[in-house]
Amino acid sequence: MNGALAVLRTLVASGVDTCFTNPGTSEIHLVAALDDVPGLRPLLVLFEGVATGAADGYARMAGRPAATLLHLGPGLGNGLANLHNARRARSPIVNLIGEHATHHQVFDAPLSSDIAGVARSVSRWVREAVSTTSVGAVTAEAIREARRGGVATLILPADVLWSDGAEPARMADDEPLRRPGRRYALALAAKALRSGQPSALLVGGAALRERGLCLAASIAETCGAKLFCETFPARLERGGGLPEVERLAYLPEACTWQLRDLQHVVLVDAKTPVSFFAYPNLPSRLLPDTCQSYDVVGPYDDVEQVLELLAHELGAPLRAPGPAEPRRPGRPTGPLTTQAIADAIGALLPEGAIVSDEGNTAGVLTFGATAGAPRHDWLTLTGGAIGQGMPVATGAAVACPDRKVVSLQADGSALYTLQALWTQAREGLDVVTVILDNRAYAILDLELSRVSPRADGIASSLFDLSPPPIDFVALARGMGVDGVRVETADALVAALEEAFSRRGPYLIDVILAA
Amino acid sequence: MNGALAVLRTLVASGVDTCFTNPGTSEIHLVAALDDVPGLRPLLVLFEGVATGAADGYARMAGRPAATLLHLGPGLGNGLANLHNARRARSPIVNLIGEHATHHQVFDAPLSSDIAGVARSVSRWVREAVSTTSVGAVTAEAIREARRGGVATLILPADVLWSDGAEPARMADDEPLRRPGRRYALALAAKALRSGQPSALLVGGAALRERGLCLAASIAETCGAKLFCETFPARLERGGGLPEVERLAYLPEACTWQLRDLQHVVLVDAKTPVSFFAYPNLPSRLLPDTCQSYDVVGPYDDVEQVLELLAHELGAPLRAPGPAEPRRPGRPTGPLTTQAIADAIGALLPEGAIVSDEGNTAGVLTFGATAGAPRHDWLTLTGGAIGQGMPVATGAAVACPDRKVVSLQADGSALYTLQALWTQAREGLDVVTVILDNRAYAILDLELSRVSPRADGIASSLFDLSPPPIDFVALARGMGVDGVRVETADALVAALEEAFSRRGPYLIDVILAA
Repeated sequence: MNGALAVLRTLVASGVDTCFTNPGTSEIHLVAALDDVPGLRPLLVLFEGVATGAADGYARMAGRPAATLLHLGPGLGNGLANLHNARRARSPIVNLIGEHATHHQVFDAPLSSDIAGVARSVSRWVREAVSTTSVGAVTAEAIREARRGGVATLILPADVLWSDGAEPARMADDEPLRRPGRRYALALAAKALRSGQPSALLVGGAALRERGLCLAASIAETCGAKLFCETFPARLERGGGLPEVERLAYLPEACTWQLRDLQHVVLVDAKTPVSFFAYPNLPSRLLPDTCQSYDVVGPYDDVEQVLELLAHELGAPLRAPGPAEPRRPGRPTGPLTTQAIADAIGALLPEGAIVSDEGNTAGVLTFGATAGAPRHDWLTLTGGAIGQGMPVATGAAVACPDRKVVSLQADGSALYTLQALWTQAREGLDVVTVILDNRAYAILDLELSRVSPRADGIASSLFDLSPPPIDFVALARGMGVDGVRVETADALVAALEEAFSRRGPYLIDVILAA
Repeated sequence: MNGALAVLRTLVASGVDTCFTNPGTSEIHLVAALDDVPGLRPLLVLFEGVATGAADGYARMAGRPAATLLHLGPGLGNGLANLHNARRARSPIVNLIGEHATHHQVFDAPLSSDIAGVARSVSRWVREAVSTTSVGAVTAEAIREARRGGVATLILPADVLWSDGAEPARMADDEPLRRPGRRYALALAAKALRSGQPSALLVGGAALRERGLCLAASIAETCGAKLFCETFPARLERGGGLPEVERLAYLPEACTWQLRDLQHVVLVDAKTPVSFFAYPNLPSRLLPDTCQSYDVVGPYDDVEQVLELLAHELGAPLRAPGPAEPRRPGRPTGPLTTQAIADAIGALLPEGAIVSDEGNTAGVLTFGATAGAPRHDWLTLTGGAIGQGMPVATGAAVACPDRKVVSLQADGSALYTLQALWTQAREGLDVVTVILDNRAYAILDLELSRVSPRADGIASSLFDLSPPPIDFVALARGMGVDGVRVETADALVAALEEAFSRRGPYLIDVILAA
């Protein structure tokens, strides 16, 4: 068989059955081979940033990698921002990139560029397949590296794909992907938590599922420690009686205030909190100077096992989630304030929903308003590269076809990867997109006001998204998705009820009160 | 003054007065400084791929660089594909990228990434500013490097921008940017052209303006040589009696046929022709095996001076362009075939128009149908990274506000950087976008048919852009641009007449006959 067929068969044999793609001529043999590998589902996107973001959303919800298939260096470039976010989420992605035939590369044809050099910035592993005979094996290696948590980039020259003599490989089932915990750090952390001094657990990554959260909450309660969650979790299970965790704030002043007076912070699959951006006269590190931190989870550790060890050491019992009585806000009426939007979503969020949250400033209250909603998952903008929300929602809907996906989307960021709507329509994905339409890059207005007193100059005009106003309902219809524009809280409630009662993609353009 | 002010004043003092941007928090001091530097015009885009493509279009038409201002590594990633095209066009661009403060970089905040590593793939020069005191000087260096022909990337850490103690610099006027020609290669080329053996001139790059074309045509005529133009010129002046040049074809079989039997090819700011992609059993190099090539233009050479030397050596007279009597096709009627579209544009293209051609398969006949139109410029997809056409049209319209820009745009490629329409509306740019809407990635259908006989499988469905059909008029309206959909040649003619008679952005969605 040719190399293309071996690559696809290796994917399927190793449990990779979904591929988000916008292919080109250099990938044409892989495309042709799809007809002979029915176990692999290709999903067409109109722009590579949708492919990589969708692969991220898929991985967060499925817990296993999808493949991408991108066209040479420019295709990688278009997908780079969402691969950056995926890297920060440590999402497993098998990132396949077509390349010119090996003998053609020396001629510097127009589409030639340094693919590996660009891919390294987002990948934990980068290889170029060098021969047809080995392409199956190197594909299996890419899948294994992705499953260890991150983007594995495999560059596939066209002649490696079109030549015969390939064999599929299969990632071994029984490979030990997990190592034991950091016992020494654990012992120090347990001692600190027992000390009676002001302490906290900061949980992130894989600690944010039901079992991890219940263990962490029990440890915190047993020791009288605070319980924080990282600012931008890849996937947080919440609602329905799961322990609530306080997210660290985005702005450094607020985060410093949350962490004030702490003497000990135990990091459970989370990084030491640092400021998202630097500011003159503010520190980058947000823990108090005298605070000790304990990083108890090493690479590839089983995070829940680490928490079990810590709970055992501290005598903290594992409790099941509490009673699932919803505490929802009332349905809002009147003007569409940030609070009204949050309350509307809090009042109506369906059980089992997946929220892809790129709501930014206008969505900031929604997280709090949904804390008492029925059980759901919350996916955030892990790497700060905007244009993630709608692609991640798309991939999450592919991974979980029986769950409602709510794509909370700030207007400015929505315009980065709006093409996701078309794939949602093409595949009939069950995604409700809620555009938080304040017609501004509001976060940047805030940042500008810290720096410059003028609110009417050229500078501030750069953060104004009108004129011309953007009509998101027209844009959605242009991509094959139905939608409605709402200007009151009552209309938003009605639109959400309608959207949550049907299946398939839908868009609500929420015009915020001025 | 602070570093931000020094950067902007250096740009203005060195003749850079236009900046395409989508900035973020790390660039906020540069944004704030805009209020104090009125000589610099910032243009907001909704996506960085529009900024970089617009800077490319601006450079091709203005002949000098604009600046971009991008937000960290992800902003660069989003702009990378069109920087790739700009690199292939050798367009001067001062590519400014914000970066975390120098003291913040060690903390690996969420938006941190290897900016320089990514930028190298598209830049002729990459530097990170290391101090406020030197940031003016390094900005001037970036401008000089850009003016030498290519993308100069300057990475600007936030603290370098916000700190005081900077001074603006200025690129010296009288720097010798050009070197003398390659005399030895010229002598050999002249000998070859005089030999009487089958010969050709292949012109590209800076040889494609009036004077260069007239010289090249005279040389070819004097020596009985053929005259070819590179496949994807950055900017070709044509029409209105300028000498016609035969473009080398995209598909290697066709290009090989054009170049058959040649013994000598003189390369005038053009590269040896190679296949765009590699194919099994086809050579990468397209010249006959026995053909000699002569590369007479070295880096930084004055191309027109080289042609003058060659013309002088060969006794070829410089002739002014011939009479400007238009030879236009008749106005088409009936179904919207590829030929009808080409004829409609050929019949109506306004004098002085700038055509940004990303028409791909559906636009392939338009170049020929406009050969006899009044004087205009033709800009093509230099690097093969789709999503260039509408951004380049945008930048060209900024550079030449008194000329009509025609953006010939294939539907699949249009969906990469559609956000360009919003900037066209915001700035009132005089751009008519003609969507060549065949609802397919038709070029890939063609490539697939070479590889696989099946036309109804999963593979071919990946090149079908419906369902759902994309409504470009709705998409344009959503971005603030008026438009119309046409389904007959008569309607296209009427729509073009209307569009060419008014100013400002407009879109025509041309539904090709099935």
